[in-house]
Amino acid sequence: MMYGHFDDAAREYVITRPDTPWPWINYLGSEDFFSLLSNAGGGYSFYRDARLRRLTRYRYNDVPLDANGRLFYIKDGQTIWNPGWRPTRADLESYECRHGMGYTRIRSRREGIEAGLLFFVPTGADCEVQRLVLKNVSKKSRKISVFALTEFCLWNALDDMTNFQRNLSTGEVEVEESAIYHVTEYRERRNHYAFYAVNAPVAGFDTDRESFTGRYDGFEKPAAVVRGSLSNTKASGWSPVAALHLDIDLAPGQEKSFVFVLGYVENPDAEKWAGPGVVNKSRACALAARFDTDAKVDRELAALRDYWTDLLSRFTTASGDERLDRMVNIWNQYQCMTTCNMARSASYFESGIGRGIGFRDTSQDLLGCVHQVPARVRERLFDVASTQHEDGGAWHQYQPLTKRGNADVGDGFNDDPLWLILGVAGYLKETGDWAFLEEQIPFDNNPSSKASLFEHLARSFSHVVNNLGPHGLPLIGRADWNDCLNLNCFSTDPNESFQTATSRDGRTAESILIAGMFVLIGKDFVEICRRTGRETEAAAAEAQIQRMRRTIVEHAWDGEWFLRAYDDRGDKVGSHDCEDGRIFIESNAFCAMAEIGSELGYPLQALDSVRKHLDTKYGIVIHDPPYRGYHVELGEVSSYPPGYKENGGVFCHNNPWIMIAECIAGRPDQAFEYYRKISPAYLDDIQELHRMEPYVYSQMIAGKAAPRQGEAKNSWLTGTAAWNFIAVTQWILGVRAEFDGLQIEPCLPEKLRRVEITRLFRGCRYRISIRNTGRARADQKVSVNGVEIPTRVVPPGAPGSEIRVAVEA
Amino acid sequence: MMYGHFDDAAREYVITRPDTPWPWINYLGSEDFFSLLSNAGGGYSFYRDARLRRLTRYRYNDVPLDANGRLFYIKDGQTIWNPGWRPTRADLESYECRHGMGYTRIRSRREGIEAGLLFFVPTGADCEVQRLVLKNVSKKSRKISVFALTEFCLWNALDDMTNFQRNLSTGEVEVEESAIYHVTEYRERRNHYAFYAVNAPVAGFDTDRESFTGRYDGFEKPAAVVRGSLSNTKASGWSPVAALHLDIDLAPGQEKSFVFVLGYVENPDAEKWAGPGVVNKSRACALAARFDTDAKVDRELAALRDYWTDLLSRFTTASGDERLDRMVNIWNQYQCMTTCNMARSASYFESGIGRGIGFRDTSQDLLGCVHQVPARVRERLFDVASTQHEDGGAWHQYQPLTKRGNADVGDGFNDDPLWLILGVAGYLKETGDWAFLEEQIPFDNNPSSKASLFEHLARSFSHVVNNLGPHGLPLIGRADWNDCLNLNCFSTDPNESFQTATSRDGRTAESILIAGMFVLIGKDFVEICRRTGRETEAAAAEAQIQRMRRTIVEHAWDGEWFLRAYDDRGDKVGSHDCEDGRIFIESNAFCAMAEIGSELGYPLQALDSVRKHLDTKYGIVIHDPPYRGYHVELGEVSSYPPGYKENGGVFCHNNPWIMIAECIAGRPDQAFEYYRKISPAYLDDIQELHRMEPYVYSQMIAGKAAPRQGEAKNSWLTGTAAWNFIAVTQWILGVRAEFDGLQIEPCLPEKLRRVEITRLFRGCRYRISIRNTGRARADQKVSVNGVEIPTRVVPPGAPGSEIRVAVEA
Repeated sequence: MMYGHFDDAAREYVITRPDTPWPWINYLGSEDFFSLLSNAGGGYSFYRDARLRRLTRYRYNDVPLDANGRLFYIKDGQTIWNPGWRPTRADLESYECRHGMGYTRIRSRREGIEAGLLFFVPTGADCEVQRLVLKNVSKKSRKISVFALTEFCLWNALDDMTNFQRNLSTGEVEVEESAIYHVTEYRERRNHYAFYAVNAPVAGFDTDRESFTGRYDGFEKPAAVVRGSLSNTKASGWSPVAALHLDIDLAPGQEKSFVFVLGYVENPDAEKWAGPGVVNKSRACALAARFDTDAKVDRELAALRDYWTDLLSRFTTASGDERLDRMVNIWNQYQCMTTCNMARSASYFESGIGRGIGFRDTSQDLLGCVHQVPARVRERLFDVASTQHEDGGAWHQYQPLTKRGNADVGDGFNDDPLWLILGVAGYLKETGDWAFLEEQIPFDNNPSSKASLFEHLARSFSHVVNNLGPHGLPLIGRADWNDCLNLNCFSTDPNESFQTATSRDGRTAESILIAGMFVLIGKDFVEICRRTGRETEAAAAEAQIQRMRRTIVEHAWDGEWFLRAYDDRGDKVGSHDCEDGRIFIESNAFCAMAEIGSELGYPLQALDSVRKHLDTKYGIVIHDPPYRGYHVELGEVSSYPPGYKENGGVFCHNNPWIMIAECIAGRPDQAFEYYRKISPAYLDDIQELHRMEPYVYSQMIAGKAAPRQGEAKNSWLTGTAAWNFIAVTQWILGVRAEFDGLQIEPCLPEKLRRVEITRLFRGCRYRISIRNTGRARADQKVSVNGVEIPTRVVPPGAPGSEIRVAVEA
Repeated sequence: MMYGHFDDAAREYVITRPDTPWPWINYLGSEDFFSLLSNAGGGYSFYRDARLRRLTRYRYNDVPLDANGRLFYIKDGQTIWNPGWRPTRADLESYECRHGMGYTRIRSRREGIEAGLLFFVPTGADCEVQRLVLKNVSKKSRKISVFALTEFCLWNALDDMTNFQRNLSTGEVEVEESAIYHVTEYRERRNHYAFYAVNAPVAGFDTDRESFTGRYDGFEKPAAVVRGSLSNTKASGWSPVAALHLDIDLAPGQEKSFVFVLGYVENPDAEKWAGPGVVNKSRACALAARFDTDAKVDRELAALRDYWTDLLSRFTTASGDERLDRMVNIWNQYQCMTTCNMARSASYFESGIGRGIGFRDTSQDLLGCVHQVPARVRERLFDVASTQHEDGGAWHQYQPLTKRGNADVGDGFNDDPLWLILGVAGYLKETGDWAFLEEQIPFDNNPSSKASLFEHLARSFSHVVNNLGPHGLPLIGRADWNDCLNLNCFSTDPNESFQTATSRDGRTAESILIAGMFVLIGKDFVEICRRTGRETEAAAAEAQIQRMRRTIVEHAWDGEWFLRAYDDRGDKVGSHDCEDGRIFIESNAFCAMAEIGSELGYPLQALDSVRKHLDTKYGIVIHDPPYRGYHVELGEVSSYPPGYKENGGVFCHNNPWIMIAECIAGRPDQAFEYYRKISPAYLDDIQELHRMEPYVYSQMIAGKAAPRQGEAKNSWLTGTAAWNFIAVTQWILGVRAEFDGLQIEPCLPEKLRRVEITRLFRGCRYRISIRNTGRARADQKVSVNGVEIPTRVVPPGAPGSEIRVAVEA
């Protein structure tokens, strides 16, 4: 069964059936106001913080699934239907949903009425615009009613679903003309409210949910819509909603358009009130007025399109493989921006209430969008570094509103510090903004404890050196990149979190992943030292790296692959000696990328072992065999049923590491084969099995041991986006920012013969033409504006200029 | 509209329409396994801890409302209906739900099929038993199908509704014969599982929710039931359920019975597995076998009935007012046991995930059930005292599983210590168990810091004396009994909780409620000192109490009533000088109960002011006028819309304090009038307005300033239960345990002429006959076994004996 297809020219994914295997969503907004929107109109909106400033209510894991969000009921005689199918699920004669860059359109038809819905969050406006266009495509005049419903969240999303003894008494609304104002708690400490308005007179309204749905009725068949009229209720506690009723006459062929705005407004304290107990609505009126005609909406939509055209123009490719092109040019970049905006906060799997911004996650996410929004990346790196401890360790997460470390999750994830080096190096390579390194940044948000960003990186590097275990390998702490490999946890209490429980001193268990990272990322640190005149530090770091290389070769090679770790007893993890979990992907990926033991052939051997033991038709599993039982000495990794998540699933994030390592090893076809296995654009024929959106990466695909092998979960918010973008653009296509300029070093599979790339780099536009004849890297030739250059690094051109690069590869 | 009525002989409330104004629930279980059960079968079950060990999933604030729980679908040809009406809401020809003591019956009929459902949690068994009886009352043979559905919660209820990136990959089940085992996470640290079984062969099963409901269908019309067959799915992640399909033939007049068991089982570590990866189910099989015939179920139900008959026999009355009798004899006592079992954890308003056991709440709740379960009360008082600090202050809540103070909520609620004295005094009066006072109990759960319970009480008393403010009145701390009167909070950040934010040193704001409590409860402390030979302490305490009396008279009298507090600026709260919040109920209640300023006529004047300013047709509001705007110096009290909750609602908990004060003041008719206003049995004519269960108290009824005046919220778990039971039995009926025996001092309204009471007290049964002729207390005459006694305190009789008491009142 096919549920949709790509429309590359429009930069849209077109969903052709509403009953997708899972709600397929889009994200609207890229500044402060954000919306999640499914192909049925489900989802919710929030301002900045998905937990603390939630505007609309969404029920996760609901039955029926995804039945709440933006609900537009069309009542046509006794027939009631939704343009987005849900929640009535009345049959549609046609249905199409188009998810585009920051907007979504739904268009459907039933019994001679065509309905078009457009949703977007405009740039520079804290609102979601919803335009409903109704057209009478029948031959007779029609009278229909539209009921639009939005259910408000009582701001704090966690409280909203747990604290009913208070919440059900606090809801308040105001109604003026065609606008409903959600002013709950505005009377007290809030200086903000939400509103839902339409640019036309309404025939009635409801603001009390029960009055709209009926006491025991649902959204599928709300009593008020069945009745055909609203009751003009004023909510007082319980669940405030905004229901608006439009009565519409349509002559044959006639079309009418209505613009709804869901807006968020903050008032300065002095301007909170228009009169005693009456909320000052002037800002809301002004905001709604920005969108009160079709022409205005069209202009705002065009501005949004321009915004995305600009962002996506910074890297484009024409490779002859349309699937590759659509991922690189559109969807992978789009997802990278989404992960940058959302971190791991709000998706259809992340409920928006629990998680802050990860030190590790965000340092990697930024690598996927630094070419698009370098200024935002700089700011974010500043925030991340501000949560580092003085000893180089770090809070594992920080809260987006306060930017402070999340003490509930804590620290001690010993890979964290290295990711900061990687993120900063990526930013420096992209921008050449070396002054950033001298910026004074606090430790642990303490203004009295500041140091330069360089010093932060130095502490990151030292944190590894200062925390080595019995074999001289890095201590793992609570966990490394694999949050579920908890070697110091030893938890036997099901009520405690594996991430935060620790019962060992942590002075024994070692991570070979961190060791590999140290070697690979350490090279960047050395370069940064050198380029800022810190030769002593550079030499010392270099020596540490060399020592680590030797240690890995000596203690971390298992014969055919790299070990994963030593546990708290000093036993090997990821060894052929193990019953389960004999080989892991992560350490092999990083050690191969770092070319550790290359003189002994280790990288190639490791990659071959990965292929032999971990490769499957749906991607490379994280380890094999999965753990069949619980291992108290390994923690959460062994808690999942075999084949899922960190216990032998295809954890997509790390697949591109292997692709990169294959490129480094000079095996382009192998790299590309891995790419195609998990890149969603190539998975059209398994939409039903895969379940998740076919235009973005998911965090995990069930592995070979799972009953549901091939089924994905946790779409959208995953480091997979950034890393696949890196793998495909920087390694397979081979265009990557380096300290000295743009490195061009393609590693193209045989089938890609000619590839054209444009790349905006430090203000200069590079037009790169690659002819792939299968040359080894060392034999590739690069010409700049017709002149062959001795290296494969093209120096930065003048901002505003254009450079032509030709590559014989 | 009437939705039901009482059946006192059966000790049941009979619900006659399924579309009650709110789901009307019952509680099953009184040991470790608990269920909430609505009149439609909605609700959920848990083992001990509603947050950490939740067996079944329930969606609060769902649309449609209360559509999940125990679902029994009857498929009769194309017709699908539920005996409990929801979720299909197919029309029923008859419907009746009977909530009894620890069990519920639902009986309904449609198209010649009669369905009866019985639900109960047996004593001494960790399960819910569900018996379905189907009868063919038509004249032809019938073939029908039954589909029973239970949706499992993934144990941790908060995680279950927030952490989908993990949870949707963990679900696991096993199926054996007619039983489905929810073994999620059993593979790792859990040594427990749940099961759902039926005592008959099944035609099929499903364990994967989506397979049962269909991808976008709901519980209203599950795809599998529509189809008429299940798919024998085995859940792997997502949402595990237990769906069982029975095919049933019924001859005309034939009746068949099926027993379903939802059980909870723990296995010792050594007995977890029956084989590799196969859960040991022997305990589940044994548990299910206890209920696998009708005869066994009948026996267990009889045992449950005996359990409640025994509990309810300890206090009975026959007053000639059937509403009074049914509250006293049945429902108020039942609710007191429920608050004792549940604290404020799980109701249809308390979501079971957030709150521990309150130091203050539980100390009061226990007063309502100490005559029923003194041993359990003793244990609970021990736990409460164990969370007291060495300085006499206390953690405001403790966690039921760990029994440790909840640091998230913290301490500093300065009324807390006094409630412990009240609770212990109540226990001592009931039992005479003076040895309890010498029990060594830790402070703050620290085994190295222990003291006698007496010493805990002494520290409680001293904590007030050591924390006096500028007027010599008790400092309020974070809040006193009114959690929302936050005089040291000064919160301007809507993201922080009023209960835990503090920005003042707390050395100024004073509480007149605590002052009144100190005088009233202090008397018990003095008595306890005296009766344990601590004359010095008694005299010192007595002096402190006298000083407090004088201080109140001097600084806390506003002219016509008692002030409520002084705020952080030293300004009056609850004074005629105030614009809003001019008079409060709490301080007037306690100062009047303590007869402070009686020489000046203050108590009567205060009570008259309460009647004049706070009394309404639906009860006494907490203060008046409600706060129209936010007062940063007062906190949460001013955050609610006027008329709701602590901002001018009828906060039922404190109404009985006024009843008691009226009794003390010798005004029985006034006391009884207040009682009738909020006692649910008297509110039959406003069921639709009141909304909540008409058989139990709610925490709050919307006050006169609210648009929904008279509408109740937060039913079941409220200190209202205990306090109304105290007011009506100890003061209006006038039978109360005292240190020396059973005090008999009725304060009966004129219309109650003869009242018979039986009271089990320290093992002796008192049969009390009261003839009410309207005598003042001092003129009442009490005879014991025919002999008039000089006091109104009847000394304890020999355990097992019976005493006849006659009272001329």
